[in-house]
Amino acid sequence: MGNQPKRIALLTSGGDAPGMNAAIRAVVLAAHHFHIEVLGFFHGYNGLLENDPTLLDLSAVNDIIRLGGTILKSARCPQFQTETGLKQAANTLVKQHCDALIVIGGDGSFAGLLALKQHWDGQMIGIPGTIDNDIDGSDATIGFSTAVNTAINAIDKIRDTANAFERIFIVELMGRHSGHITFNVGVACAAEQVLSFENFSADNREQKLKQLAQEIASVQQTRHNSYILVIAENVWPGGATALARELKETFAIDSTACVLGHIQRGGSPDAKDRVIATKMGVAAVQALINGENEVMIAEQNSRMCSVALKQAIQHQKKINPNLVAAHENILAVTAQNQC
Amino acid sequence: MGNQPKRIALLTSGGDAPGMNAAIRAVVLAAHHFHIEVLGFFHGYNGLLENDPTLLDLSAVNDIIRLGGTILKSARCPQFQTETGLKQAANTLVKQHCDALIVIGGDGSFAGLLALKQHWDGQMIGIPGTIDNDIDGSDATIGFSTAVNTAINAIDKIRDTANAFERIFIVELMGRHSGHITFNVGVACAAEQVLSFENFSADNREQKLKQLAQEIASVQQTRHNSYILVIAENVWPGGATALARELKETFAIDSTACVLGHIQRGGSPDAKDRVIATKMGVAAVQALINGENEVMIAEQNSRMCSVALKQAIQHQKKINPNLVAAHENILAVTAQNQC
Amino acid sequence: MGNQPKRIALLTSGGDAPGMNAAIRAVVLAAHHFHIEVLGFFHGYNGLLENDPTLLDLSAVNDIIRLGGTILKSARCPQFQTETGLKQAANTLVKQHCDALIVIGGDGSFAGLLALKQHWDGQMIGIPGTIDNDIDGSDATIGFSTAVNTAINAIDKIRDTANAFERIFIVELMGRHSGHITFNVGVACAAEQVLSFENFSADNREQKLKQLAQEIASVQQTRHNSYILVIAENVWPGGATALARELKETFAIDSTACVLGHIQRGGSPDAKDRVIATKMGVAAVQALINGENEVMIAEQNSRMCSVALKQAIQHQKKINPNLVAAHENILAVTAQNQC
Amino acid sequence: MGNQPKRIALLTSGGDAPGMNAAIRAVVLAAHHFHIEVLGFFHGYNGLLENDPTLLDLSAVNDIIRLGGTILKSARCPQFQTETGLKQAANTLVKQHCDALIVIGGDGSFAGLLALKQHWDGQMIGIPGTIDNDIDGSDATIGFSTAVNTAINAIDKIRDTANAFERIFIVELMGRHSGHITFNVGVACAAEQVLSFENFSADNREQKLKQLAQEIASVQQTRHNSYILVIAENVWPGGATALARELKETFAIDSTACVLGHIQRGGSPDAKDRVIATKMGVAAVQALINGENEVMIAEQNSRMCSVALKQAIQHQKKINPNLVAAHENILAVTAQNQC
Repeated sequence: MGNQPKRIALLTSGGDAPGMNAAIRAVVLAAHHFHIEVLGFFHGYNGLLENDPTLLDLSAVNDIIRLGGTILKSARCPQFQTETGLKQAANTLVKQHCDALIVIGGDGSFAGLLALKQHWDGQMIGIPGTIDNDIDGSDATIGFSTAVNTAINAIDKIRDTANAFERIFIVELMGRHSGHITFNVGVACAAEQVLSFENFSADNREQKLKQLAQEIASVQQTRHNSYILVIAENVWPGGATALARELKETFAIDSTACVLGHIQRGGSPDAKDRVIATKMGVAAVQALINGENEVMIAEQNSRMCSVALKQAIQHQKKINPNLVAAHENILAVTAQNQC
Repeated sequence: MGNQPKRIALLTSGGDAPGMNAAIRAVVLAAHHFHIEVLGFFHGYNGLLENDPTLLDLSAVNDIIRLGGTILKSARCPQFQTETGLKQAANTLVKQHCDALIVIGGDGSFAGLLALKQHWDGQMIGIPGTIDNDIDGSDATIGFSTAVNTAINAIDKIRDTANAFERIFIVELMGRHSGHITFNVGVACAAEQVLSFENFSADNREQKLKQLAQEIASVQQTRHNSYILVIAENVWPGGATALARELKETFAIDSTACVLGHIQRGGSPDAKDRVIATKMGVAAVQALINGENEVMIAEQNSRMCSVALKQAIQHQKKINPNLVAAHENILAVTAQNQC
Repeated sequence: MGNQPKRIALLTSGGDAPGMNAAIRAVVLAAHHFHIEVLGFFHGYNGLLENDPTLLDLSAVNDIIRLGGTILKSARCPQFQTETGLKQAANTLVKQHCDALIVIGGDGSFAGLLALKQHWDGQMIGIPGTIDNDIDGSDATIGFSTAVNTAINAIDKIRDTANAFERIFIVELMGRHSGHITFNVGVACAAEQVLSFENFSADNREQKLKQLAQEIASVQQTRHNSYILVIAENVWPGGATALARELKETFAIDSTACVLGHIQRGGSPDAKDRVIATKMGVAAVQALINGENEVMIAEQNSRMCSVALKQAIQHQKKINPNLVAAHENILAVTAQNQC
Repeated sequence: MGNQPKRIALLTSGGDAPGMNAAIRAVVLAAHHFHIEVLGFFHGYNGLLENDPTLLDLSAVNDIIRLGGTILKSARCPQFQTETGLKQAANTLVKQHCDALIVIGGDGSFAGLLALKQHWDGQMIGIPGTIDNDIDGSDATIGFSTAVNTAINAIDKIRDTANAFERIFIVELMGRHSGHITFNVGVACAAEQVLSFENFSADNREQKLKQLAQEIASVQQTRHNSYILVIAENVWPGGATALARELKETFAIDSTACVLGHIQRGGSPDAKDRVIATKMGVAAVQALINGENEVMIAEQNSRMCSVALKQAIQHQKKINPNLVAAHENILAVTAQNQC
């Protein structure tokens, strides 16, 4: 173990996710345990360009496990995508005597890591932190569980008022280009219908609009009740607002659009996200000590493991097909018949 | 007390508010205590037109104190505003042998009560239930406290991600035409700025836009931090979305608009709303027994009292001027200097 | 205004309460607005003995409005109750050039302030911060609202499992020697029975035990349901655990005792506590500027005012009699008949 | 598929767990989809003895997905463990024309199922519902995730007041005879120490007491901070209260014992528990249609599968060893050094 790193650079990048602070804490605790220093860089990859890091000692991470957001902040960094930017970042790491770099973020952040590889030869580890849960190779990403819980708590409230007025709501959820959040929230909220990439393509837009209109009309005729449709962002051109307008204009159906928005990114992480973030942070330091490089820490079947970064960014993780099938074939069809 | 009512009609009307179920329960419990029956009519005043009520016994209200929404449902009722509608409603009350009518709702619902007076001579009591807190004569209305808490929980989450990215958010809150929700939420969330009817008129739109732009620019230059502006619905033409667009187009300022929407109407009522709803429900039945009529149950200085319905709907309740002054003169000005 | 203070000493004392940080922030913001410095002393009055304060600038209070606990910490301080301790504290205030002292705490902390008066002649202001709500002269104290909400959220969960098993629970709540928390929680949770100082004295212990046993037996015979009794700490010798044991031993009644405990002290303050703490913090600084002394900032009928400290600590605040009467005469009696 | 069941008996048994209602709903929806009737029996196996079931149609399960507890109630049933009881239960199933029985509960409930097998030859399916997560063969049980989240929310509040007073808390958690809840909560709350079956046996009681005392003393000397020890119920003779007393009596260490108790059983299920309960409910009906018998529905590596009931009750599920190792070797050791 003579080659174990002496100083780790650490940053959070991409969209922030609840649990990132728990991962930061775990990296710092584990590193301290193995007598390794941790330098925190701020604002994602910008921190490597700005070269103004902070030494993260134990007191810096005291009681942060339960805080939303990230104490290291995050930001886009277009400069980092240039040759000059990458060189500058590599320079900073050399100047700061960092042997290793741990990045907590999503697939875009991991692509950044691999690009940096050409200019710097330290060890590189990725920790999957994104509410979207779309990283291939890990059963879960930090932040997903909390985001889903935040969304269902919000929709439970919407259900109350929807029931009182027997109204139709179209609730738009985050998730970039995958339906992990949308399908889990839809099932967990007993949404009458779910619209996501997995069960809809924009080619069938007119057909889908008609189908939704018929479904809603049928529900309204046969029973007094609310109707909640959850849709993934980016799945319907113009989003929930456009869909509500089209239902009104084409089929004279009144509905209320709700875009849940950034509340899904914040909040104290739930237990799942704190635990997985802690396990991943510890595992990342252990992986460094084991000499691993260019890997992402992952959870597969409840065990920590490593996945090549290249592989992790190649595909987007598919949603559990059982969940889609159960909803499509049984739950949605039956739920709409509740009287 | 030979004249005490034997059968009360009960309905919820207007926008639903957390705590309405607690009020329903209290009316039923108190009525049962005094050997009075309670008939529940559904969907607001529509229930009086449809004449399909339910006898509310004790088991019907068991464990509903903590439920959001209203088990009696609510709805708009344009028909009730016609002479025919009013007569039909009066007919129902006579046919159902109701001596009294209790309506839980806002000022629109109370105006409906007074209109009905011309066609029916039973006792009439209003209980102020609206998240907007805009009913003159009562220190609080059922649902306001919960709505404010729901909003601050949401904005606390937004603050997390706003801090992580040092972003500007414009969060739009409910409140119809008053700033009770907006100012309380703004102060409770340490919002950097609050925009409501009390401190802004649309005439000053251009001037305000410029002022906001300067303020934001100044904050961004002098410190790394987030900036949250909360605005009341209906106060800025086009709402938060339009304001964000104007800031971008005119001053090249990036901000994110969030419309919190209907989550503010739902959710389990907080302790304050459950307690006040319970006190008001009990007081409403006691007022009927005392022979009162055409009054609204109110809380003034922590005591239950009655206010003439006519008076209650005459003016909109003003917001606590201390709160506005404290925010305008001290909090907002100082908060923007935090470094 | 030539005599306005230039430097304020600030500390939190006694049991911590959610919202204390919001009050600290408001004092610092308002002081900054009027160009006054604020020195924060740690661990209650111990901080005055230790003489190791921190200058609280705007950045020190950034984003603390939503944090539970107190960043200035709190602690018992027996030494402060001695002549030597008081002199030492006075010395510190002189050495640190403090013109004024603001203490956020309960009546014990205010008594401390008055004792210090003999040794120091600066301005003294108390801000009522205690979850017990037992300070005479103010309609509300900082922390009470949050503590009540925390308790009802916990009891709502207990109700779920109590319903599932049709069980009897005895839930013990905080409140020292007053029933503000217990009665409000009892009403808000639709507790079948409430036991507090206002409706029970230990002299009637045997009689009360028998009455409870009869009531519970009667409920169990006539209907399938849960039964929740909330009791104030210190009201029954040995607390909830002893009461459950006595019910078992004397009447063979099975019940489960739950002592909610310190969860009632923590958590992010709710909107009410954040707003009132903010108003009180601003008002405290304004009172200093107005030359007031030996007063407590209070809220009466939604307005800020000042109350002589002497008066504030003379009596314990009585609970709203309407609430007790409504519960005792109507709610409890009726609720037990639910089938 | 000519042999698919026509009528399913459904009951919940053992300790109630959040998500049981979601499972009930899913069974009813899926059964309805396949034109199968569902009879709900109340109070666990007592319902089979009492023979007073209810037909569960779609409206009976409308909007119950988010409710804590179980609408079918639960209870102990000693009679069911007798030959007479089992025969009576079998009789009921025959009389009610039930082809299949689905039981949602823990390993005790599954043992009951197998016992019934001797007297009745219908299909039998178990769905693992228990907050303890101790059922071998399934990665998760319904209710575990919610219970852990409830506990961390409570301990986050305790941490606030512990920090304010730099106090020591001993928090006792549920879990019967396994440390799933305790270890997950301990890690998620950054507890300074965790005491559970996995890392402690009562034989080492004196040694452990001494070790804890030294650890606490060392923490108190080197830094100002709180210290939270979470312990599993049944692990220390006398529980948290006894441990606190022993620390005081033997080592003069003040600490506060908190028994979280039944709040861990209640509350609206979180997203994880709603989703897994829904998937398991659907899978149970599908398993019946596929002709499976004497199996438990399980989730393994994110997929639904079946496990022989016999196997499921043979062993108690072990806790994830990575979690214990990470905590024991790194987190606890390091966390105590935070300054």
